[in-house]
Amino acid sequence: MKETKHIAIVGAGLVGSLLSIYLAKRGYKVSVYERRLDMRKHLIEGGRSINLALSNRGIRALEDVGMAEVLKQNAIPMHGRMIHDESGRLNFQPYGKTGQFINSVSRGGLNMVLMTEAEKHGVEFFFEHRCLAVDFSKTELTLQEYEAVKHKSFDLIIGSDGAFSAVRGAMQFTDRFEYQQTFIEHGYKELRIPASDSGDYLLEPNALHIWPRESFMLIALPNPDKTFTCTLFLPFEGPSSFAQLDSKENIQAFFEKHFSDAVTMMPTLQEDFRDNATASLVTIRCYPWVKNKTLLIGDASHGIVPFFGQGMNAGFEDCRVLNELLDQYEDKWKKVLPVFQELRKPDADAIAQLALDNFIEMRDLVADEDFILRKKIEAELHERYPDKWIPLYSRVTFRDDQRYSEALAVGKKQKEIMDRVMNTPDIKNKWTSINLEEIVNQLK
Amino acid sequence: MKETKHIAIVGAGLVGSLLSIYLAKRGYKVSVYERRLDMRKHLIEGGRSINLALSNRGIRALEDVGMAEVLKQNAIPMHGRMIHDESGRLNFQPYGKTGQFINSVSRGGLNMVLMTEAEKHGVEFFFEHRCLAVDFSKTELTLQEYEAVKHKSFDLIIGSDGAFSAVRGAMQFTDRFEYQQTFIEHGYKELRIPASDSGDYLLEPNALHIWPRESFMLIALPNPDKTFTCTLFLPFEGPSSFAQLDSKENIQAFFEKHFSDAVTMMPTLQEDFRDNATASLVTIRCYPWVKNKTLLIGDASHGIVPFFGQGMNAGFEDCRVLNELLDQYEDKWKKVLPVFQELRKPDADAIAQLALDNFIEMRDLVADEDFILRKKIEAELHERYPDKWIPLYSRVTFRDDQRYSEALAVGKKQKEIMDRVMNTPDIKNKWTSINLEEIVNQLK
Repeated sequence: MKETKHIAIVGAGLVGSLLSIYLAKRGYKVSVYERRLDMRKHLIEGGRSINLALSNRGIRALEDVGMAEVLKQNAIPMHGRMIHDESGRLNFQPYGKTGQFINSVSRGGLNMVLMTEAEKHGVEFFFEHRCLAVDFSKTELTLQEYEAVKHKSFDLIIGSDGAFSAVRGAMQFTDRFEYQQTFIEHGYKELRIPASDSGDYLLEPNALHIWPRESFMLIALPNPDKTFTCTLFLPFEGPSSFAQLDSKENIQAFFEKHFSDAVTMMPTLQEDFRDNATASLVTIRCYPWVKNKTLLIGDASHGIVPFFGQGMNAGFEDCRVLNELLDQYEDKWKKVLPVFQELRKPDADAIAQLALDNFIEMRDLVADEDFILRKKIEAELHERYPDKWIPLYSRVTFRDDQRYSEALAVGKKQKEIMDRVMNTPDIKNKWTSINLEEIVNQLK
Repeated sequence: MKETKHIAIVGAGLVGSLLSIYLAKRGYKVSVYERRLDMRKHLIEGGRSINLALSNRGIRALEDVGMAEVLKQNAIPMHGRMIHDESGRLNFQPYGKTGQFINSVSRGGLNMVLMTEAEKHGVEFFFEHRCLAVDFSKTELTLQEYEAVKHKSFDLIIGSDGAFSAVRGAMQFTDRFEYQQTFIEHGYKELRIPASDSGDYLLEPNALHIWPRESFMLIALPNPDKTFTCTLFLPFEGPSSFAQLDSKENIQAFFEKHFSDAVTMMPTLQEDFRDNATASLVTIRCYPWVKNKTLLIGDASHGIVPFFGQGMNAGFEDCRVLNELLDQYEDKWKKVLPVFQELRKPDADAIAQLALDNFIEMRDLVADEDFILRKKIEAELHERYPDKWIPLYSRVTFRDDQRYSEALAVGKKQKEIMDRVMNTPDIKNKWTSINLEEIVNQLK
């Protein structure tokens, strides 16, 4: 018999909704408390990104609850990066081998499908319920609905309430809770490329478009309605920064100078720039994730920057790993909770670092000749030794059987090896004749 | 005319109380809100350390408001460290030159004197007022007194509410607020050495006693009532740890083994150990310290570990520096606030680092032969070149004209030079004949 019967989940975002399905399927009574309105009934104001990249780790977690197929139907495959240089010239860089791709999905759409599926399994959602406080000794939530405040006890509380988690906020005032929130100097703003007059995509839809400009970048992901959601990543302050874009003229001149091809496809640039907030990018690191019978999961325990497209995937993987531990320990939460946090913390730290590192790669290196050659050699290595040499991007994105922490460690080794390869005199001309086996063997 | 008239200070601790005097003397209406009871009327339960080391930076800030003399009357000078080895042998290490000392003062006593002085200048204290929320755009506090909640607006709010600041807690949810709380693996517990039967000190009163044991330590500071307050610093977990001290027998055996001389002077060891909490030790780093017209000061903006005896001194120095900037900018807070945080942040970071470093020195190096020789050579250098070679400890403790950040930087240089000196072959026997001038000249 299970001792834990009634589980509260705080936060009905992507991770909370998926987790509620996992837990309902295991036979728990699950109540989900969400601060915002039900997005299936109300148009929710933005602030969060509109689309996300779903890749193998996320897909595997969705498969576990039988949700992968339905979600793939609305996903748009992106097979690689389409690099736009300052004069508008294009260069396509595949993400992996033929047939490997990531998926542009709608955050809202995915979230709504997951909530509706959860309800089919008996999960109850309580919207407009704000978590005010957590009593960790009593496993009790203080919840505010309009002006009414109520206290509710559970057998277990799970905080999946995102990077600015209220559950974690309460934990922070418990003793010896390690906590860090760090912002990068860049902010982001969402913009739009509409469909063409004939109702088609204005850019290649099966790619993630990048305009890398070293200290900043613009990216674009395709939507099913033939539009693209663009995101400008730019420092808040300094020479090229949001602070400088303080007039219509300055915005127009900046885009014309740096994104000459994109700007011609952005008729609502000025309105979008004015109406969409400039948001900040934070990394959250904390530990422990467990206090008594309360657990943090997803962004609440490890908020990361979006540059590896792994935020949602990491959160979904959290759910899968937790579910597997529940199998292994026969739903004995007392054993599962400490094992989960110890197992998962190094992976959360790894993907946080990888996400920060990948920003530099995206905005800077993808436009670099040496970088492109390096990618070519690595692709060749992967082609010839598919199980031995797996590029870091593929380890993170296309493998669901390798931990983030392992990907980070092997990726570091591979980088050292590739640094030496790239130092070979005249590598530009000689790369086709280098000894690939010798390179691969250095990995052992 | 001043635009800022009414200032709220949150927290009536040492820093808040001193700051209220500074501000009242400048002509501001000052209201101080304190969560706890008035300690002048009620015996407050412990949890905070009983005595503190007041040194030159703190004294200078007290002098500025005419309070240094009255406070020195109850202070006990400590001229150096009295090291106790495992067999109870003593070794005295002076802190500085003859006539240089730090002062053991009572936290509560000092706090009460400052509050009473503040009231003489018109400061109003509101006890049992808990800060629930801060509205940074309206400069408004939400305050709870018993069950009543009220909102109050001010021209300026200053959070001096310590390492677990409620004002900072509110700031943490504002955009791009950098924040980190990190605990060391050691906790601490306060214990007691009573006066002798004849009413005298059982140990030398004019010293800070240390029982350094590498991975842990015991210290003792003298009180005016001829007792000593001891503090045991010990890891929470591991082979020698609080976790191991889980029975009377284990506690007794641990103290007899490691603190053989001290334990004979601790008749209430078992009761003190049981009744006094094991507290944790945190370093708080955050930035910015200013949001609109709200400022963080003291531990609220830079909580540090106690091992350099500088927590209170740094907070008092904050007050002095702020006061000097108010002089310089003629009470134009709009100018003063950004200058204050930019000026003071590097010093806060420096003393946080120095405090962490000094723990290693205290528990480990002070018992080391090489360390003692190093200190001897440095003392000699300081004696011969008093303005050129000032040991790091003296820079931090006995100078009030050098910034913490400068002390840290010069201290690092001095350490490199001394590392080389200590590598001289047979330095043990040759140190009296080394060329001191050559050493000092390396500092240039």
